[in-house]
Amino acid sequence: MKIKLGIIGYGGMGKWHAENAPRAGVEIAAVCDINQVRQQEAVDGGHKTYKSAEELLKDQNVNTVILTVPNHLHKEMCIKAARAGKNVITEKPAAMTVAELDEMEAACREAGVFFTAHQNRRWDRDMLTVKKAYDEGLLGSIFTIESKLHSGNGYMHEWHIYKKYGGGMIYDWGVHLIDQILFMMPGVKVKSIYADVQNVLHEEVDDYFKILMKMENGIAVHIELSTYILEYQPRWLVGGDKGTMIVKNFACDGNIYRTGKMLEKLPPQITETEAGPTRQFAPVPPGGIVTEPLPVIQTDWVDFYRNVDDVLNNRAETKIKIPEVRRVLSVMEAVRKSAETGEAILFE
Amino acid sequence: MKIKLGIIGYGGMGKWHAENAPRAGVEIAAVCDINQVRQQEAVDGGHKTYKSAEELLKDQNVNTVILTVPNHLHKEMCIKAARAGKNVITEKPAAMTVAELDEMEAACREAGVFFTAHQNRRWDRDMLTVKKAYDEGLLGSIFTIESKLHSGNGYMHEWHIYKKYGGGMIYDWGVHLIDQILFMMPGVKVKSIYADVQNVLHEEVDDYFKILMKMENGIAVHIELSTYILEYQPRWLVGGDKGTMIVKNFACDGNIYRTGKMLEKLPPQITETEAGPTRQFAPVPPGGIVTEPLPVIQTDWVDFYRNVDDVLNNRAETKIKIPEVRRVLSVMEAVRKSAETGEAILFE
Repeated sequence: MKIKLGIIGYGGMGKWHAENAPRAGVEIAAVCDINQVRQQEAVDGGHKTYKSAEELLKDQNVNTVILTVPNHLHKEMCIKAARAGKNVITEKPAAMTVAELDEMEAACREAGVFFTAHQNRRWDRDMLTVKKAYDEGLLGSIFTIESKLHSGNGYMHEWHIYKKYGGGMIYDWGVHLIDQILFMMPGVKVKSIYADVQNVLHEEVDDYFKILMKMENGIAVHIELSTYILEYQPRWLVGGDKGTMIVKNFACDGNIYRTGKMLEKLPPQITETEAGPTRQFAPVPPGGIVTEPLPVIQTDWVDFYRNVDDVLNNRAETKIKIPEVRRVLSVMEAVRKSAETGEAILFE
Repeated sequence: MKIKLGIIGYGGMGKWHAENAPRAGVEIAAVCDINQVRQQEAVDGGHKTYKSAEELLKDQNVNTVILTVPNHLHKEMCIKAARAGKNVITEKPAAMTVAELDEMEAACREAGVFFTAHQNRRWDRDMLTVKKAYDEGLLGSIFTIESKLHSGNGYMHEWHIYKKYGGGMIYDWGVHLIDQILFMMPGVKVKSIYADVQNVLHEEVDDYFKILMKMENGIAVHIELSTYILEYQPRWLVGGDKGTMIVKNFACDGNIYRTGKMLEKLPPQITETEAGPTRQFAPVPPGGIVTEPLPVIQTDWVDFYRNVDDVLNNRAETKIKIPEVRRVLSVMEAVRKSAETGEAILFE
């Protein structure tokens, strides 16, 4: 069985799937959008084009749909597609709430169709570089993992600035950043969540968040995003008792840092620095800290669609399971609750 | 009345006060240490030297003492000094607990002597640069202040590695970093505190902490220290809705960053980056972010002793008040409690 994909919503991400999914052998069978300009764009792109999801779902040539509509429509479209017998891939966040997701999953189970979410950032090279350090103990025992995303672009765009469409950065990127951490540490419980969420430039939706998650394995995870921190801090900082890893950006500039003269006790002299007496925070002697290159990771996002193809042909299990998607949404709900109350949420 | 200082404990900080306090006109009247090597060092330094605090406290020429003994001895020494009629300056942390501080303050009040703590890092130029941004609104409305101190030196030294002496980095530097924030924002309540505290390299004492404090004014304060993060992150990051301030280090390297073409809405195109499709986190166009130099601050630590001198001569009130010191210790206790329980502490 070949994936014959119907794209529901021909905005930015709809177009992106139309261009990129064929790399995995996916056939773009049809496209729909309620907006006339986008309908014309789809026609111009050579796609079979419908004016509504309802029409597209009647197309017997379509066996799978990708939902690239605003977030508040995922539930409705998923249930309609399932009832029309289509397998469903939804853009992230899969749903606005855990409760919505449960309804969607029930509809797909009832219809006997496959259901997954496009958590494409499990294939990001920067995250996989950190995951390798975690899996292989490259930094010894890790005490902190910081995942940060800063932008100087300020404002969000289109429907993302409105609450009723599921806008805001927790929905847009928080879902990725949380998913990456839970994916990195399979089977590790989240003990406690504390979050600060703010609207810095936007009236309705969040555009800054800092989330601390204490994990069962002792690691304190720090997830942070801002659309308006203008000197970007490293995408990842990982601290272990045998070194520090910095991954500066998506392109994976960065290094592993280790102590050269490994961890000798300091002489008892006080060093005068620019700001008064300190031994601990005096400069390390020359050569005291050495760098190594980051490990090089091969990754290909298109494996997402290859996996969907394998699942539909009974060759593999899905890499993005609905219980995982549900857990991420649960964390997101805890984040909002913590931000509102000032309390930590004891989680799992 | 001239300050005639008795130095109780002639270790690193005792020697430092002996060298530096005279800049404010302080007379080093006497020194004591129970360690023979240090006694000899004091004699060699030309100081009148005693073998115990008890002997020094009998010296009628001493009117004020500085306590530069390990933290667990501050309470005992303070009470003895007060009862001997000496004004008391204690090194930080003033006490191991709030309860200890209350005993110390009561003893000083009863004896009618002046009591303060050497929170010298209220005169640090890096902190005062950030305080200027806060006071004068240089960054618009501030949403985050991050105060971080990283070291590659790893191990602590001497008594700081033992719990019973009041070792660990919360006592050594946490007390400064918390005090700086509360000093920066006078009158602003701390609503909620959440902390991760770890022993990365040390068996008994903390050498890593990350503290989030949600302030009544909406600012989320982040305080962090590690003795083993090898690529140091900026000493300060301040994010406001009109710019970002980075102060890299004690020497105040850094900049203010602002958007050049101020905050235009983005075009609806998706930008392909190294890690998949994103508009929000695509690079800002050239010239989109501009830098300004940091404001230049004049500061002199020796004003600490000048203020003590003014207080003792009824010319000023003390710059470091015991209720402030007590509040910092309360935050430190909340930090430990949060770290132990995984819960946030609703504070003021």
